[in-house]
Amino acid sequence: MAGKGVLIMDILKVSARSAPNSVAGAIAGVIREKGEVEVQAVGAGAANQAIKAIAIARGYLAPAGLDIICIPAFGNVEIDMVERTAIRLIVQPR
Amino acid sequence: MAGKGVLIMDILKVSARSAPNSVAGAIAGVIREKGEVEVQAVGAGAANQAIKAIAIARGYLAPAGLDIICIPAFGNVEIDMVERTAIRLIVQPR
Repeated sequence: MAGKGVLIMDILKVSARSAPNSVAGAIAGVIREKGEVEVQAVGAGAANQAIKAIAIARGYLAPAGLDIICIPAFGNVEIDMVERTAIRLIVQPR
Repeated sequence: MAGKGVLIMDILKVSARSAPNSVAGAIAGVIREKGEVEVQAVGAGAANQAIKAIAIARGYLAPAGLDIICIPAFGNVEIDMVERTAIRLIVQPR
């Protein structure tokens, strides 16, 4: 996907209805493959599922010696033509 | 507070009504003084405010060269005699 030296990070979009265990599996998969992933959430319910998923993913990756941490940041996403503030959680091994 | 070699971490309890900017100021203060803080949230609204507060605190601490990260984990807290699952966010400089 990346070209001309541009680094593109995989983004997992989480909603309030996302199952934390499934998102955790996806986080663990991308971390193993790419070493880093961004988890994006819009709204309190989504942010809650995202943070739970990262806590669960820590357990999936710990046996492989991967101690993941997250860096929270804000971002903007457009949903149905409306600009909304997203929580971006950048997940990396420590 | 700590005795006999026991290390006690400061805990900030965040609710859905907490103002992220105020919590961010508290996080930055404890990080500067103690180097580490745990932010505890019960419920989606509280977890959302907690994560926003950490994102804001990153901006407060960055000029001092402190790049904070967070480690999400689960915990149990008793509220009105009922056991509830809390999200614990351990905040540390990278």
